[in-house]
Amino acid sequence: MADAVTPTPLLKDELDIVIPTIRNLDFLEMWRPFFQQYHLIIVQDGDPAKTIKVPEGFDYELYNRNDINRILGPKASCISFKDSACRCFGYLVSKKKYVFTIDDDCFVATEPSGKKINALEQHIKNLLCPSTPFFFNTLYDPYRGGADFVRGYPFSLREGVPTAVSHGLWLNIPDYDAPTQLVKPLERNTRYVDAVMTIPKGTLFPMCGMNLAFNRELIGPAMYFGLMGDGQPIGRYDDMWAGWCTKVICDHLGLGVKTGLPYIYHSKASNPFVNLKKEYKGIYWQEELIPFFQSVALPKDCNTVQKCYIELSKQVRAKLSKVDDYFVKLADAMVTWIEAWDELNPSSADLSNGSSK
Amino acid sequence: MADAVTPTPLLKDELDIVIPTIRNLDFLEMWRPFFQQYHLIIVQDGDPAKTIKVPEGFDYELYNRNDINRILGPKASCISFKDSACRCFGYLVSKKKYVFTIDDDCFVATEPSGKKINALEQHIKNLLCPSTPFFFNTLYDPYRGGADFVRGYPFSLREGVPTAVSHGLWLNIPDYDAPTQLVKPLERNTRYVDAVMTIPKGTLFPMCGMNLAFNRELIGPAMYFGLMGDGQPIGRYDDMWAGWCTKVICDHLGLGVKTGLPYIYHSKASNPFVNLKKEYKGIYWQEELIPFFQSVALPKDCNTVQKCYIELSKQVRAKLSKVDDYFVKLADAMVTWIEAWDELNPSSADLSNGSSK
Repeated sequence: MADAVTPTPLLKDELDIVIPTIRNLDFLEMWRPFFQQYHLIIVQDGDPAKTIKVPEGFDYELYNRNDINRILGPKASCISFKDSACRCFGYLVSKKKYVFTIDDDCFVATEPSGKKINALEQHIKNLLCPSTPFFFNTLYDPYRGGADFVRGYPFSLREGVPTAVSHGLWLNIPDYDAPTQLVKPLERNTRYVDAVMTIPKGTLFPMCGMNLAFNRELIGPAMYFGLMGDGQPIGRYDDMWAGWCTKVICDHLGLGVKTGLPYIYHSKASNPFVNLKKEYKGIYWQEELIPFFQSVALPKDCNTVQKCYIELSKQVRAKLSKVDDYFVKLADAMVTWIEAWDELNPSSADLSNGSSK
Repeated sequence: MADAVTPTPLLKDELDIVIPTIRNLDFLEMWRPFFQQYHLIIVQDGDPAKTIKVPEGFDYELYNRNDINRILGPKASCISFKDSACRCFGYLVSKKKYVFTIDDDCFVATEPSGKKINALEQHIKNLLCPSTPFFFNTLYDPYRGGADFVRGYPFSLREGVPTAVSHGLWLNIPDYDAPTQLVKPLERNTRYVDAVMTIPKGTLFPMCGMNLAFNRELIGPAMYFGLMGDGQPIGRYDDMWAGWCTKVICDHLGLGVKTGLPYIYHSKASNPFVNLKKEYKGIYWQEELIPFFQSVALPKDCNTVQKCYIELSKQVRAKLSKVDDYFVKLADAMVTWIEAWDELNPSSADLSNGSSK
């Protein structure tokens, strides 16, 4: 009977929740009131023989490595193994306009008032209202209740641009790199900052994949989490890579990226010694990657995400192969990813090629 | 006896509080615990025959229009009359390293916990710790207690750069333009956002002069509030003009601009009809001013604020005179301002000219 009055949540049939995991998904119990009406795409990492238990009552599809290999064939090489980067396979097979992705060690956070935070609802709000990347609004999100554009904000910019990405934050365990984890093992994030803001055009940011939503139609093909984990020289840079690529493409296409609310509660710090091993090449490579992404220029005729991404892969090959051979392999994988995307999303490929078939 | 144990506040002898006013400064009573040990520079606007009462116990110097004319002679033409833009005269005559400026309708705000906010102390903290304009940190100010740089933040950028400007915000009456005031007469800002952040390099923002602090040695000569008020076609863009000029010069010189905490309580909305009259040219001019400032490039040999500012005045004259003749007058005033600055601040002028006299 209670079900009869459960209201239909926002975008119920237009959003998939993508979860990469290696374990039983008990964490979903806490999210039940917020997630149960949505469809889940679970990407099982590691041994495909293992059975992942999903709590009853959730509507889901689950893919393990065998499924990925079967569906993508040789193109499966672009999907990482033994790394949460495998989550982007879920973006590929989703048929929805929006994606929310969350890690299985993330729980429901509470506002200072004690109210439980419906993270997904806040992400949807972020995605459905515009972004303001061309000028900074000092009262943060001008579209939020009780706020607006302040004096001196050009009126021509107040319509904003479509929002492609909503990046949420974490209470409790902050998303620190291994060196910072080692130096500050006891630091916890307890500061609830009640703000959503647009990251300005031309500014890069560290995009974390733990609590992230995006408009798949607007930016999906750029959300490739790279080659990480098994057989690769690097880990824990999957979401960073996706964030840098996504941000330069959003900037080029006039799309918005927001950060701030919602918070999730991040329960468990990963092992800093293991992380250090995964990260250490990333830590010095990023010193060259950031200037590279800061100077990327995409030509005007790159008017779709796919075209932008292919162009970006060429620049990665041309300019980053001197950093390490890995980037040649990554550039190849970026192309494979787009081929896989277009194969599984033919209508978006048509759009991209300007075809009318 | 109580005085004997009053602790010396931060930067007591290195900071001036600049207040433009046309009325008795009763508002200082509420600020007494926070301001009384600092030196005040009061810039009296309007009729110099009027006597401004300052509550007892404050250490201050007061300048009216006669003083400004006497001290600057013909260069007094660059200081606005009948507009709070006159406040920048206080920056000129200050001999301190830091300036905090506040409007006389701004009162002490309270944190959600009920604690009174020492706005000046927070500004000083903002100015004394570095800024991070080259890359966005998703947990906001990484130097604050309980926060740090997140995973994916390049280590080479973690030293930050010196902070030149700290822009504080307002609870209660938000800083809206006249059209927004007219549309939302009852809107009040009640959202306390517990964050300080660096405005990224290359991003402009609407700098409000109500609650503002800066490092006068680093950026003082750029804090010119323009020609507004009496005899001018425009008002209420004094701080915006200063903000745009300051931001492009900070970006060029590698200095940081922060916004966020501290909040003050802004008590009284100014009359939106009067404001509309003052603002209306600004509202359409800014549509051309913003693209101008977004595209300003300063040559490498502009290595002091003065040189940057003179170069900027040339570009204003060359590129904005087509918008209105007013900008020719403003460009002249920008030059006069720098001449006045160098006259009253000879050591900074020496630095600027590379002279060793």
